[in-house]
Amino acid sequence: MNIILLSGGSGKRLWPLSNDIRSKQFIKIFKNKAGQYESMLQRMYGSIKRIDSEANVTVATSRMQVPSIKNQIGNDVSISVEPCRRDTFPAVVLACAYLKYVCNVDDDESVIVCPVDPYVGDEYFVALKKLDGLVKEDRANLMLMGMEPTYPSAKYGYIMTKTRDDVSDVLSFKEKPDEKTAAEYIERGALWNGGIFAFRLGYMMKKAHEEITFDDYADLYQKYDTLKKISFDYAVAEKEPSIAVMRFSGEWKDLGTWNTLTEAMEENTVGDVMLADNCENVHVINNLGMPIFLMGIKNEVVSACPDGIIVSDKVQSSYIKPYIDKIDKEIRVADKHWGNFLILDSDDMGTTIKLSMKAGESISYHSHELRDEVWIFVSGTGRTVVDGITQRVHTGEVVTIQAGCRHSLEAITDLYVIEIQLGKDVHAEDIKRYSDE
Amino acid sequence: MNIILLSGGSGKRLWPLSNDIRSKQFIKIFKNKAGQYESMLQRMYGSIKRIDSEANVTVATSRMQVPSIKNQIGNDVSISVEPCRRDTFPAVVLACAYLKYVCNVDDDESVIVCPVDPYVGDEYFVALKKLDGLVKEDRANLMLMGMEPTYPSAKYGYIMTKTRDDVSDVLSFKEKPDEKTAAEYIERGALWNGGIFAFRLGYMMKKAHEEITFDDYADLYQKYDTLKKISFDYAVAEKEPSIAVMRFSGEWKDLGTWNTLTEAMEENTVGDVMLADNCENVHVINNLGMPIFLMGIKNEVVSACPDGIIVSDKVQSSYIKPYIDKIDKEIRVADKHWGNFLILDSDDMGTTIKLSMKAGESISYHSHELRDEVWIFVSGTGRTVVDGITQRVHTGEVVTIQAGCRHSLEAITDLYVIEIQLGKDVHAEDIKRYSDE
Repeated sequence: MNIILLSGGSGKRLWPLSNDIRSKQFIKIFKNKAGQYESMLQRMYGSIKRIDSEANVTVATSRMQVPSIKNQIGNDVSISVEPCRRDTFPAVVLACAYLKYVCNVDDDESVIVCPVDPYVGDEYFVALKKLDGLVKEDRANLMLMGMEPTYPSAKYGYIMTKTRDDVSDVLSFKEKPDEKTAAEYIERGALWNGGIFAFRLGYMMKKAHEEITFDDYADLYQKYDTLKKISFDYAVAEKEPSIAVMRFSGEWKDLGTWNTLTEAMEENTVGDVMLADNCENVHVINNLGMPIFLMGIKNEVVSACPDGIIVSDKVQSSYIKPYIDKIDKEIRVADKHWGNFLILDSDDMGTTIKLSMKAGESISYHSHELRDEVWIFVSGTGRTVVDGITQRVHTGEVVTIQAGCRHSLEAITDLYVIEIQLGKDVHAEDIKRYSDE
Repeated sequence: MNIILLSGGSGKRLWPLSNDIRSKQFIKIFKNKAGQYESMLQRMYGSIKRIDSEANVTVATSRMQVPSIKNQIGNDVSISVEPCRRDTFPAVVLACAYLKYVCNVDDDESVIVCPVDPYVGDEYFVALKKLDGLVKEDRANLMLMGMEPTYPSAKYGYIMTKTRDDVSDVLSFKEKPDEKTAAEYIERGALWNGGIFAFRLGYMMKKAHEEITFDDYADLYQKYDTLKKISFDYAVAEKEPSIAVMRFSGEWKDLGTWNTLTEAMEENTVGDVMLADNCENVHVINNLGMPIFLMGIKNEVVSACPDGIIVSDKVQSSYIKPYIDKIDKEIRVADKHWGNFLILDSDDMGTTIKLSMKAGESISYHSHELRDEVWIFVSGTGRTVVDGITQRVHTGEVVTIQAGCRHSLEAITDLYVIEIQLGKDVHAEDIKRYSDE
């Protein structure tokens, strides 16, 4: 099975855990069987691999998400990186070109495209395999999976079907309706459009070449920013006469707001949280190193991380976006391909940062114009290069780096480093890189 | 006017801002006329000094509070330090002995004793002056100030009076009653006992010598731990036949819970806080370096500092203590006589601390058995002594201190230092001091 997982959508609806660079699929709040918290991405990727260990999974995403993806599911995952955002049709074409030209997938093979962020059970992956089978049987050029609606939602697009059979030809697509219209659609057997498509690779390459002139993956990648922004539905699905949909009635949730996300949590709290007995229907996610205590609270979600804290009525949590758009703060915690950083403190005179690096990873050669830096090695063993001089470093070592001086850092074992940036004009943009990461 | 401010009562009712070592009188949430936040202590001390610049104020407190007091109202304040807790009678006697033997106050002079933590307006201090005048007129051996009750509270003791005059002889004292009994007391003209007493110094020294054998302040201090725990009311007030009370009907609030404390806040928020329009009757105090956002919240208090976060229904906030007693976390932020510290991060391998030192202050000569330390000077100028070697330090300087090595630090200007403690057994008790602070 070839699966393209679309990992898109940065956003603030799950602030402070999600923001412009940290998408909701990276939030770790789902407890796995080993008792560890995992993200939607880890849950989805892990389930696919568990149910079909041979599955060839490619994540289609933007450059910004690559560090988080590698950090969460490892460096070996196949990633098709969009140089810029161009909506779903160019993204699917780029990922398909990646499969064809980089991974040498045959035109005859089937490909399933699905979003990375719904909350689903194992039966979802069984259904994906069935969908894959329908492509191989040539049931239609383009196969969809549609979700059996559970209520007349105004949040989803609808797929109108010819019959109520498990697999039916598609009549038409409907944009997000109002609730009354949604109820009428459902009456007529319509399904929610969850953005799940399957096809043979050759089919999609043909569609791609009809719209875009390109030679191969590298050529497409290079001209990607010149492509028209157009959705897959609009460019392909709505025009395709040979199109069918498979009904799916298993668990499938779109966890886009705090209210819906907390419904999928196994326990009411994550992290260091104490709830008084008089709390009811509250969920608390605490990613801070200090306790949170709730007393006499009902129907609320509290979520805290180094970027901020939200306390919201659950129902009202769907409407936070315009407020959060006004918050314009430096992001204090982020995943990197080499591990992660956390800004512990910053003021006019300096910034103190905790770097956690994974064994074998490196921060490449770079320099800063305006700030001096000091690295204090708290634990682990590493190797620094400062102005060409290589030095092995371990617990207790202090390395001072003057402004303008080139430096790099490699983690030999897992490394925990405190970095202190000194100077009045410390900002993230003050960096000059000397080799690609 | 000689005033003894009793600064006692550590407690957790205002957690996380108050705790076992940080009392509520040090919480800075009252905006002064200059727009700066000040604590109950600063507000009380500043008001006394403003209304009577000649007032001789002595703070009677425990050793633990001395750094916070000096930090908040300066090094020049007169402090009578109790070597251990022995209830209010020994505390008042010790402070009076301090006035007599250390400050050379005459036996004839009047002394007012009052708690440091009620929330009061200027008329309170005018009343204290009037109380002082009544002592000087010898209206009675012991003068009290009683608060005109505003409701039949079960939280206070009551003073029963002979008449309803502005100044009346005292009939008796009543312990905290139930509400029904409280209403009966009020019907009979009773007053709340706010713990405010005034007398001539000689009177109190006589009472002291009747109960305790001691020569002078030093002698009393030295045997303080052998004294019986007994309240001032029980030891003196309830036995004194020449006792009168002055009625006070001005602003006087006991801000002992989040619910009552927030009533005295001028604005609904302190710190980086955003309230959505649909919030009602909420107060948020944010001492963290990250934003807090509230959406659709009503009748709640949120308070956050590096030691923890509380989200509580306002009425329920009176009942938090048994829950908070279960929280047993290292205190991450504290005032010291030299400034303050904030633990930015700590784990098995090391602890990162931000030290903010005030110009002219010092951390005295000490060493640690088990941990190495690194000081990184982020801003300011200071002087270190490490194993006898004096060094001037400024921005960007790094000083490494091995375990066992004696070291001290003096702030020449205001200093901002990052201290990194390295070692598996880092704990606050690992310190050996070589001179008194």
